[in-house]
Formats: sequence, C-alpha cells, structure tokens
Amino acid sequence: MIVSALLTSVGINFGLCVLFFTLYSILRKQPCNYDVYIPRLLAEGKSQQRSSFILEWLLPSTSWVKRAWQTTEEELLLSSGLDAVVFMRIFIFSLRVFCLAGIIGIFVLLPVNCLGTQLAQFDIAELSNISLDLFTISNVNNGSKWWVKFGYEAHSLLFTFVIRAGILHVRENWFADFPYCILLPLVSLYFNKLCIFFHLSCRLWAHFCAVYIVTGFVCYLLYYEYNYISSKRIEYFYSSKPQPHQFTVLVRSIPVAAGSSVSDSVEKFFTEYYPTTYLSHMVVRRTNKIRGLIDEAKKLYKRITALQSGPTKTKYGREGYLGLFGRKVDLVDHYEKKLEDLEENVRLEQSEASLAGEEIRAAFVSFKTRYAASTACHMQQSINPTRWVTEEAPEPHDVNWPFFSSSFLRRWFSKLAVVVVYILVTVLFLIPVVFVQGLTNLDQLELMFPFLKSILTLKFVSQVVTGYLPSFILQLFLKTVPPVMKFLSSIQGYISISQIEKSACNRMFWFTVWNIFFGNVLSGSVLNQISTILDPENIPSKLAVAVPAQASFFIAYVVTIGWTSASTELFRIIPLICSLIRNPCGGDKDDELEAPPPPYHRDIPKILFFGLLGITYFFLAPLILPFLLVYFCLGYIIYRNQFLNVYSPRYEAAGKFWPIVHNSMIFSLVLMHAIAVGIFTLKKLSMASTLTFPLPVFTLIFNEYCRKRFLPNFVAYSAESLIKKDRGDIHDGSMEEFFESLVTAYQDPALLPIQYSSHTDGHSTPLLRV
Amino acid sequence: MIVSALLTSVGINFGLCVLFFTLYSILRKQPCNYDVYIPRLLAEGKSQQRSSFILEWLLPSTSWVKRAWQTTEEELLLSSGLDAVVFMRIFIFSLRVFCLAGIIGIFVLLPVNCLGTQLAQFDIAELSNISLDLFTISNVNNGSKWWVKFGYEAHSLLFTFVIRAGILHVRENWFADFPYCILLPLVSLYFNKLCIFFHLSCRLWAHFCAVYIVTGFVCYLLYYEYNYISSKRIEYFYSSKPQPHQFTVLVRSIPVAAGSSVSDSVEKFFTEYYPTTYLSHMVVRRTNKIRGLIDEAKKLYKRITALQSGPTKTKYGREGYLGLFGRKVDLVDHYEKKLEDLEENVRLEQSEASLAGEEIRAAFVSFKTRYAASTACHMQQSINPTRWVTEEAPEPHDVNWPFFSSSFLRRWFSKLAVVVVYILVTVLFLIPVVFVQGLTNLDQLELMFPFLKSILTLKFVSQVVTGYLPSFILQLFLKTVPPVMKFLSSIQGYISISQIEKSACNRMFWFTVWNIFFGNVLSGSVLNQISTILDPENIPSKLAVAVPAQASFFIAYVVTIGWTSASTELFRIIPLICSLIRNPCGGDKDDELEAPPPPYHRDIPKILFFGLLGITYFFLAPLILPFLLVYFCLGYIIYRNQFLNVYSPRYEAAGKFWPIVHNSMIFSLVLMHAIAVGIFTLKKLSMASTLTFPLPVFTLIFNEYCRKRFLPNFVAYSAESLIKKDRGDIHDGSMEEFFESLVTAYQDPALLPIQYSSHTDGHSTPLLRV
Repeated sequence: MIVSALLTSVGINFGLCVLFFTLYSILRKQPCNYDVYIPRLLAEGKSQQRSSFILEWLLPSTSWVKRAWQTTEEELLLSSGLDAVVFMRIFIFSLRVFCLAGIIGIFVLLPVNCLGTQLAQFDIAELSNISLDLFTISNVNNGSKWWVKFGYEAHSLLFTFVIRAGILHVRENWFADFPYCILLPLVSLYFNKLCIFFHLSCRLWAHFCAVYIVTGFVCYLLYYEYNYISSKRIEYFYSSKPQPHQFTVLVRSIPVAAGSSVSDSVEKFFTEYYPTTYLSHMVVRRTNKIRGLIDEAKKLYKRITALQSGPTKTKYGREGYLGLFGRKVDLVDHYEKKLEDLEENVRLEQSEASLAGEEIRAAFVSFKTRYAASTACHMQQSINPTRWVTEEAPEPHDVNWPFFSSSFLRRWFSKLAVVVVYILVTVLFLIPVVFVQGLTNLDQLELMFPFLKSILTLKFVSQVVTGYLPSFILQLFLKTVPPVMKFLSSIQGYISISQIEKSACNRMFWFTVWNIFFGNVLSGSVLNQISTILDPENIPSKLAVAVPAQASFFIAYVVTIGWTSASTELFRIIPLICSLIRNPCGGDKDDELEAPPPPYHRDIPKILFFGLLGITYFFLAPLILPFLLVYFCLGYIIYRNQFLNVYSPRYEAAGKFWPIVHNSMIFSLVLMHAIAVGIFTLKKLSMASTLTFPLPVFTLIFNEYCRKRFLPNFVAYSAESLIKKDRGDIHDGSMEEFFESLVTAYQDPALLPIQYSSHTDGHSTPLLRV
Repeated sequence: MIVSALLTSVGINFGLCVLFFTLYSILRKQPCNYDVYIPRLLAEGKSQQRSSFILEWLLPSTSWVKRAWQTTEEELLLSSGLDAVVFMRIFIFSLRVFCLAGIIGIFVLLPVNCLGTQLAQFDIAELSNISLDLFTISNVNNGSKWWVKFGYEAHSLLFTFVIRAGILHVRENWFADFPYCILLPLVSLYFNKLCIFFHLSCRLWAHFCAVYIVTGFVCYLLYYEYNYISSKRIEYFYSSKPQPHQFTVLVRSIPVAAGSSVSDSVEKFFTEYYPTTYLSHMVVRRTNKIRGLIDEAKKLYKRITALQSGPTKTKYGREGYLGLFGRKVDLVDHYEKKLEDLEENVRLEQSEASLAGEEIRAAFVSFKTRYAASTACHMQQSINPTRWVTEEAPEPHDVNWPFFSSSFLRRWFSKLAVVVVYILVTVLFLIPVVFVQGLTNLDQLELMFPFLKSILTLKFVSQVVTGYLPSFILQLFLKTVPPVMKFLSSIQGYISISQIEKSACNRMFWFTVWNIFFGNVLSGSVLNQISTILDPENIPSKLAVAVPAQASFFIAYVVTIGWTSASTELFRIIPLICSLIRNPCGGDKDDELEAPPPPYHRDIPKILFFGLLGITYFFLAPLILPFLLVYFCLGYIIYRNQFLNVYSPRYEAAGKFWPIVHNSMIFSLVLMHAIAVGIFTLKKLSMASTLTFPLPVFTLIFNEYCRKRFLPNFVAYSAESLIKKDRGDIHDGSMEEFFESLVTAYQDPALLPIQYSSHTDGHSTPLLRV
C-alpha cells in the first residue's frame, strides 16, 4: 500500500464519520427518532415529547459531545452502574497507553524507520508514491550489516588514532609508565566494540528501548487500573443497598430421600446445619412448558391491543377454515376467548409445577447475613463433595431460567459440544468467508449479473467492488459472530445472563485474535498454521516475518473498520432502519419501549482487539498509532453518549469484566515480546533479542502477582467487608421488609400469576403482571 | 539375558532373603538388639528385658510372621494411625491388581508370546539357554505378516469352498433364488476378512484385550480404594478426640500498624470479626538463636550424665588451655557451671524473644469450634487478599519451626531455587553415577589397587565385580536421594513436617521414574531424551521400541533390588551396624530411646515404582508378574511387622498420602497405553492401536471424576462433618480443659523454660522439661 492510497482511505472514512456525526446530530432531535437515539431517556420518562417544530431541529449541533464529555464518572456510575464505568476505563486505559506509545512512536521510531535504507531510500519529494513499508521496522537496516560496515571503518579509524596517540605519548613522554602503552589500545578497542554495539546499531536499540518502556508503562497502568477498579468494586459493595443475591446461594445436586421432596430435603439440611442464619429457600422447578404458553399469551395480547387500536373493519373476521367460511365474528372477542383459555391453561400448569414432581434438584437458599451466605458458598457442604454443591447466586433478574430445565447429563453433553463447536467455528470460520469472497471477483460478478457489466467497467466502481466488497462480506460475517457466541455460551449451562455475556466476551476476543490477527498474518493454509502451533520454537521467527508484512493492512483496518464501527455505533444504522421500516416517521410508537442492554460481549472484544493491534504494532509500524488514538477518542465520547441516552443495563456484574481486559492486555504484551524477539533475531541483533527474553518472563510474573493481589476480589468479597456490611444493616429498620421480599425474590417469573385477559376488569385496563 | 542367568539371579536373591529372614528371627530375640528390632516396643515400655539365656533364642522361628499376618486393620489404625493403614493399602491394592494381571499374563499372554516366532522358535528342550525376549511381546508375530501370509491362504481356501458350494447349489437347485449366488461369495469374503482380522492376528488381540481388562480393573480398584480411604478418613475424624490443629488456623502476612505489635493486631482483627468464636492466638517468634543455645545445652547435659555414670578418674581434668595447665578441677562441676551459664543465656534470649521486636508476622489463631476455624481458613479475610492469608494449621508437634524464622523474600527465593535444583538433580543425576561407574571397570581397578590383581583374575570375582559393582554404586547413589529430596523440600518453606514428607515423596517418585525407568529405556544421551520430549508425536513409537527391549533388565531389577530392599528393610542392616559400632553387645543402651518415624518419603515412591513397572510391563513381558507378586507379598508382611515393632509415627496426616498413589497409578496407566499404542503400530496392527486411543482419554476422564469426587475430602473436611463433630463436643465435660491447653498448644518449644542443670535440685535428678 502506498501513502496516497492510505490518504484516500483516511479521507473517505473521515468524510463518512463527519457525515454520520452531522446526520446524527440532526436526526436525534426529531421526535420520531427518539426511540432509536434516546430510548433510555424515553423509557425512564425523562424526555418530553416536543410537538412543535423548531428550525433548530434541522441544524447540526455539538451539544451532545459537550454533555458526554462533561459527565463525571460518578454520574455514569449512578446512571449505568459499575460495568459501564469499567467499560469506559478500557478507553481511558488505552488512551493513556497509546499517548505515550504515540509520542515514542511518532517522534522517535518513525524517523528512525524512515532514515533506514533496508528497503529503499526515503524520499520526501515522492511522499505520496512511497510504500507504507518504508515507515515500518522493515526499513531499518539489519544489525549485522551495520556491524560489518561501520565496525571495520570505526575500528580502523580508532585504531589509527590510538596508534598515533601512542606514538605521541611515547615521543612526548607525557606518561613514562609502560602499561599505558598497552592499556590504551585495549581500552580503545573495548570502547570501539561498545560504540559499535550501542551507537552504530542504535537504530534498532531505539526499538528495543521502546519495547521496554512501553511494557513497563502498560504494566504500571494495568496495576493501577486493577487496583482502581478493585477498590471501586469494594466501594460499590459498601454503598449498595441490601440485595437478594448477596444473601443467597444456589445449591445444586441436592440428594433427596425416597418419599420426600427437594424442598423438604433443603429445609432439613439447612435448618440442621445453619439453624441461626438460614432464612428461606426456593426450589427451582421445570417451567419450560409454562414459559411457552406465556409467550403465546403475550403474543395474543399484543394482537388484541393492535386490533383494538386499529381501524374498525379489521376487527371482524370469519370463523372456520382460514377465516373463509363460518359466520362473521368479532375478532377481538374471539382472541379474548382464546387468551382466557390460554391463561386457564397456564394456571393449571403452574399449579402442576408447584407439585413435587416438577422440582429440579437445585434451590436458591437465602440466609440472614451476607457472611453466612458467603461461608456456605465457600465451604464444602456435604461429605460427598458432588452433593450439595453451592455457588454464588446471580441477581434475581439475571437468572437464566431456561437453563435450569435441562438435566445434568444434558448440560454436561451440551457443555462438551459447545466447546467443540466453538473451536471448530473459530478455527474454520474463514473457510466459508473466503469461499464467498471468491465469488465476488469481477469475472464471476459479470457472469452472474450480466446487466452490471456496463457499470463494472468503470474504473472507480471496479476498484470499490474489488477493494471493499471482500472486506464488506467479511464484516457481514463477523457481525453474525457475537450472537452466535452468546448463543453458544447460553446453551452451555451458565446460570446467569452476566456469566453468559462474560463467557461470550472472552470467546469473542479469542475468535477475533485468531481470525483477524493470525488469519491475516499467517494467511497460508490452515494446516500450515496448525504445524506452526505444534512447533513452538519457530513461532517468533515466523511471526517476525509475517507480522510486519501486514502492517499496512492493519493500519487500513483501524481506519476503515475502527472509525466506521465507532460512528455507526453512534448512528445506530440497523435500529434506525428497523425503526423506519416498522413505523415510518409519524406512526405510533410501541408503548412498551425498552432501552437495549449494553452489548458488552460484542464491543469489549472489538476494543481489546484494537488495543492488541496497537501494542503489537507500535514499534513495528508506529504510523498506526495516530489512527488508533483517533479511534479511542471517538469511542470514548460516543460510548459515553450511548450510555447516557441509549443503553440501560440489565444486570450489575460490578466490574467482573475487567479481568478479561487485563488478561487480553497481558497476552498482547507477550505476543509483542515474541514478535520483538523474532524481529531482532531476523535483523541480526541477537544481543537485543536475548535481552528481550526477560520481558515476557517478568510480564507473566507480574500477571501472576496481579492474580494473587486483585483477582480474589473479583470472585468473592472478603470476610472483612461482608461482616462490616452486615453490621451496618443491624440498625437499619428496613431489613425486616427486605427479608420478607427476599423469601420470594427468586420466584421463577413463569410461576407468577398472569392476567392479560379482561376477564374480570373489563376491556380498558388489561392487567400486566409479568 | 538368558533364562539360566535369570534363574541364577533368582536363586541368589532367594538365598539372600532366606538368610536375612533366618538371621532376623534369631537376632531379634537377643536383648542387645532390641533397640534395632523392637525400638517401638522398648520406647513404649511394652517389652520386658529378659536377662536369663534360653536356648530358644538361637533357633529361627516364624512367630513374627504369624503376628504380623494376624494383626487386623483396626489394630494397625490404633497403634500406627491412618497413615500406616493407607501405606498398607498400597500393598493390598497392588496385590489385587497383579493377581488378576498375573492370571491373565501367565495363563494367556505368556503362552501366546512363547508360541510366536518373530524372534525365534520356542524350544522347551533348550529352556535354560533361550533368551528372555522370547517370553515378551517382541516374539509375537507382526499383524501385517500374518495378514499377508495367512490372509491369502485362507482367502483362496474359502473362495474355493464358496465356488464349490455355489456350483453345488446351482446343480442341486437347493435354492432357486438367484441373489444367494451373489450374496454367498460376498458373505464368505466378508467373513474371511473378519477371520483374518480377529482370528488370525488374534494373538496380539489377546494383548489388546488384556490391556482393556486390566485398565478397567485398575480403575475400578482405584475408585474403590479412594472411596474406602476417604470414608476411613472421615471415620477417623469423627472418632478423633478434640485436637489443637482442628481448632486452629495459621495466619500469615499480618499487617501491623505503626507503634503496635503483631499480637495486638491479631487480637484486634479477630475480636472484631470473630467475636463469638475467637479463642486465642500465639504469635510466632524468631527463635533460631535460642534453638542453637538449647542444642548446645542438651549436648553439655549429655556429657555430664556420661561423666557421672563413667569411671571416677575421667571426672577430673585440668582447667586452662587444652586442659593441660591450671589446677585440677572436678569436670562435672566445671560443665555444670558452663551449663548454668548457658541456661541463663537461654532464659535471657527467651525473655528478649518475648518482646515485640522478635515477632514474625505470622500467628496461630485458635477458635472455639472446628467450623469457625475452617471458615476462617476458607474465606478471604481482608480486602487485600495478600494480607491475613490463612491456611490450615498442622499438628503442634508437626510444625517445622525453623522455617518460620526466614523472611518472606528469602522463602520465595529458596522456593524458586529448590525447584531449579530439583529439576537439575533429577535430569542430571545419572551423569556423576555413570562417571563413577566408569571407574569400576577391571582395568581401572587393577591400575588403582595393584594388590587386587590376583583376586580379580578369578572368573567368579571378576563377574561379580563387573556385574554387581555398577549396580551397587547406582544403589548407593540412590540411597542418598531420599534425604536430599527431604532436605530440598524442607528448605522450600513448608510449615509442617508432614507437608515436607509429602512433597519429598512426590518428588522422589518422579525422580525414580525419570532416572530408573526413562533413564534405562531411553539410555541415549541426555540431549536425545530432551528432543523426544519436545516431539510429543513420536513418544509412543519410541517407547514401543525401547520399552520391551528393557524387559529382561526390569525383571532382574524386581528380583535383585525389590526382593533385597524388602529383606534389608526387615533386617535393618544400617541401624544394626550402627548399633553394633556404638554399643557392642552387652554395653549400655541409650536411655532416651526413640522409635524411628516411618520413612514414607523413601518407601512409598519405591513401592509405587514397582507398581509402575508391573502395569507397564504386564502385557509386554508377563514373566515379571510372579516376581512382583513375591515382592508385594514380602512387603506386605514385612512392613506390617515393622509398623508393629519398629516405626512410631511422628504425625498423623490422616491418609493425605493417598492422592499421590492415585496419581502415580493413573500416570502408569496412561504410560502403559502410550506404549501399547506404539507396540500395536509397530506390530502393524493399526486397528488395535486406533482402538487403544479411547483408553487414555477415559482414564483421564475417570481421574478427573475422582478429583471431583474424592480429592476435596483429602484437602479439608466438609461443613456437615465439622458441625456434627462440634455438636458432639458440646456435652463433653473435658472441653474446658482442652481449650485451656489449646491456648499454649502452639508455643514454640524453644520458648519453653528449660532446666538441665542441677542448680536447685541437687545432682541426682536433673529436671528435663523439653
């Protein structure tokens, strides 16, 4: 890729961004787009629907940027929870890292790279035509050549000088001492060697130093952030109101004696062993069938309300086959009747489910104190460790109810299957993509769509088609991956939605790293890649060859995919289109507007991947850094805005996403070190390559320390904080009330009484209690 | 090795065993050997010193075998604790496994091996001259050759038969149906293939089946034993009296505020967070110096008692330089004075150590219930997880006091150093051994000791020297390894002796496997071995070549090393020699006789290694099995006898050694599977080699299940059992007394008041309070 091509790409994408921003600042003010751009404010009833038209609506403005910028972390914490704060910390962390890396990269490494002559001489006059590779480390001259070329020259020069100086000494008799005559040449030789080592090949030593400095800085920041978020987490815990999941554990594999029920068994066990702290329990029941019925009832109810608010004529239809025969009836009445039947069915099923037969051997057991719940969670309960298995309960609205319905064996098999499917999907993802991309070459297209022939002959169009279409298809395929990952994680058997998203987030990151990073870097056959893995010694050298070669691709990737993804996140293209299709401007909006949950599992891996690109490429191709900084700045503002206006969190994982961020950064660092070792070896600077070895070792030791120091706080709270918090509650008058609500907090929503039909209350106010 | 050589070796070793047994049964009755053969009974005062000489003393008897055999497991449990029972279970487990393997091996595999002709025809007439390799799997004919040879023959035979039958059918018109005419040849062909597959090469299939059967049986037994020992462990816990370590946790990394002491800090923390259950604490102090002084005092005291009981003349010496000048003094008085000074010093140091300055940031914290101690141990105590780190306390007399004196950083470094040293020792052990063995060849010996020349020319002597000396040197070197391993583990920073021995036991096992098994099997250069490890694909094929080749060596190994080690264990050669040197028969015995502790870390790995040999070789060279069975029978009787008469346990790990046994067996199984896969591939029976693949997978899954099902019970006790046990204590009147003793249970013995000197009481009864 040459500079002009990069500039074109930057220009186009910059233009796109400006366009999106302008459109956004206009469209967001139209009341008909409120459900797309400020669903959260709408759902919370904070936005007044302005009806009168003002000219200001049509003018782009930057007030939203100001608002997003001015929001403090405390406000974000209050409005969107700790998870949102942690999410924004990723941007702050990345901005800090890449500011330093950017300064080093642009002001030190980039000039060094440009001044090299390994590939070609840098010529400022032909700037637009020179290859981007001239800006990368590939252009820095090899260590050994410097050594050979300058080593001899410098040596001969210095030696001549020393000889002359020696002669001078002897002649002038400045030093009568004999040893000086021997020492001086030796010293000069040693100095010569040192000079050659540290001065003459210092261009690569600059990269070496940069690697050390940035690794140190990243580790320091990682420590700082882990510490900060860990303390935030504890602060959050201290300031939180009593919450059901703090007092509750999930017990599984409950043994049941013949003739008794799961409920009796739980009651007996916990009253026996935790007589003073045990409060209540709620046995999980099989409710798949009821859930299906309720969904059906909901749909029917929606149809009825649509009919009621629609024009009168649609309210009547004919009974019988396909509504063609039979007498004309009031459709609303007809559906109402159906709904009543359904509800009757639901009630019957619910009363059946309450019987012992439908119990699952799992229960939510609540305690009177947080400390008691936590001890029950940490200790092995039964003599047989596979029974009475306890784990932390998720928040009540975070529970993944459908999961409980499947049997243990089925869950075990699905877990195994999910892991196998995940590995297959990850490893083999590119095969169908490459296949579809193969269809998009011009000849194929002309053959399939002959009418396009005339357009495709235009140079610009053909360039766009060949240049953008393959990447567009790849992006389309990539868009389908996060839901697939979430689906895989959800059938694996996690008990809560937050765990599902955390697992999906992790999987998505490795998927991206494998398919985008290694997929491009090692773009040989799949077999080739596998043989590389099995041959761990050669990984650095292979990476050293392959990674810098892809520098220009990844610079373009940051500009095209990164910038565009940030601005489309702001513009919300897909929800906008959906909204336009469903309700053309001016139509009725859905009353039950729900703000979407933040798509952590989709966006965190994306941001982390850009972090990985930055860390691995900062010393190879420093030109990537300014573009990355732009991306992170955009992301910082845009996501803050989205948290305030769009997303409304469904659960509070209290920052449990951070360890994923930390691990991915450590992985990026170690990968960068492996590449550095390879590069320095390749550039025949074996000294630097040897000196780089301690870096991954220290990074991994640092990671180990962080695991010991911070990770436990992300898994469970300490006895100290639990007891303190419990003591704080003693004088709280509202605890009685809380404990009363705790008893029913983990009631399966499918077992709550439902009432959609107007059976009792008349048509006007259907009672919605689900 | 030929059969006669094996028989000679068996004969010699059998003779040795009989000799040792006879000598033992005579020597053990001599009162002067009581301290060697029944130190335990002596120490417990159960043995009356018979003074009158009876003729019976000189006659060998087998009464001890009867007694050892008749002792029940309950008696063993009472006298030597659960660890001894678990130790004996290794023998029972091995005997069961190798009984089945022996039946299969001797009655099925051995005939199959002998009937093969791969190496040579088996000729019963020349039995004594044939190679042992004829009894191994190497002699079974290759699968492929059978296929080629018999396949064609059988095929042509069957085909002729089928054609004839077909003609017959058509001619006789028995079946008018046409399809039969086509089907019949096809069926016969298929049957033919099957026959070739399963019948003609069935000699190797016998080995294949044996591998499956024995793996299944071993896994079943492993499950059974794990279950049995796990239940024994819980039974033991339920039946145990209240013990200090059940109520205590060790707390480390105690943070101390400026101006306060560790003791205050502990007191404050635990009274705040565990007000109802906290009982007391004991801060650990730096006592290295005091320990040195006390040792000195002990030595001095021993010298005084020796002087007092010795002849009068030795009691007097001269003061001053070397005792040559100065006035004649009573040496006893002199030493007494010195001892008093020392004791004064100790008392001074002790009172200094009691000050806050000598406190280490670790403390034993005792609770009022076992459950409270266990929760404190399981929960993260402080918000900062690197502070207030808790772990289970060992028994008071099991604490490794010297360890506490070193700082955290020193412990960390020594841990790292120990791991590195261990790996180096393990990998490079053979190099010095081989070097020393190289010196033992005849020429070298004659050169170094010219006077031996005449003896060495004798054929028998030279055979013994070349045959036995290298192995003798190897054994001598091996004897030094267990103490080295124990030393390494002890400086690594374990807090208890039981942990040290467990760790040494584990290390010793891997050391043996690497140096004896792999060292012999892959007896190439060290570099060659390492390259094998780095190339995991080729391990099975390399093992398949190397392992059967060493069969005769390991058969001889079991007979020589195994049998001899068992009988020397009984005969206790080294203690006997020591005792003879120290006190020739009739001399005074040491009053403070202490029974030695059972050397678990030395003997468990040895037994496990014979188990590994049996499992890996049972299908390769079934001839090893009878010798192994003899070894295990001997061991079973001998170790029972030693537990009753010799060893007295120092601590009770309550069966924590079993997981090591389990893991080593699983490793043996997987190693055996790897060899089987290699062998079947080598023998060109790829079908069997493919079908063997599921075995290691299932074995590892089984292991995973066992880890889940049983291992937690070996790490900690469950809430259920702790609470039950605590409840049982409530009505126990002696608990008050126990809690009083608990307060001082973890007092460092170096800080207890000592009184050796007769300062107050007069000469006759020195007060020994240590």
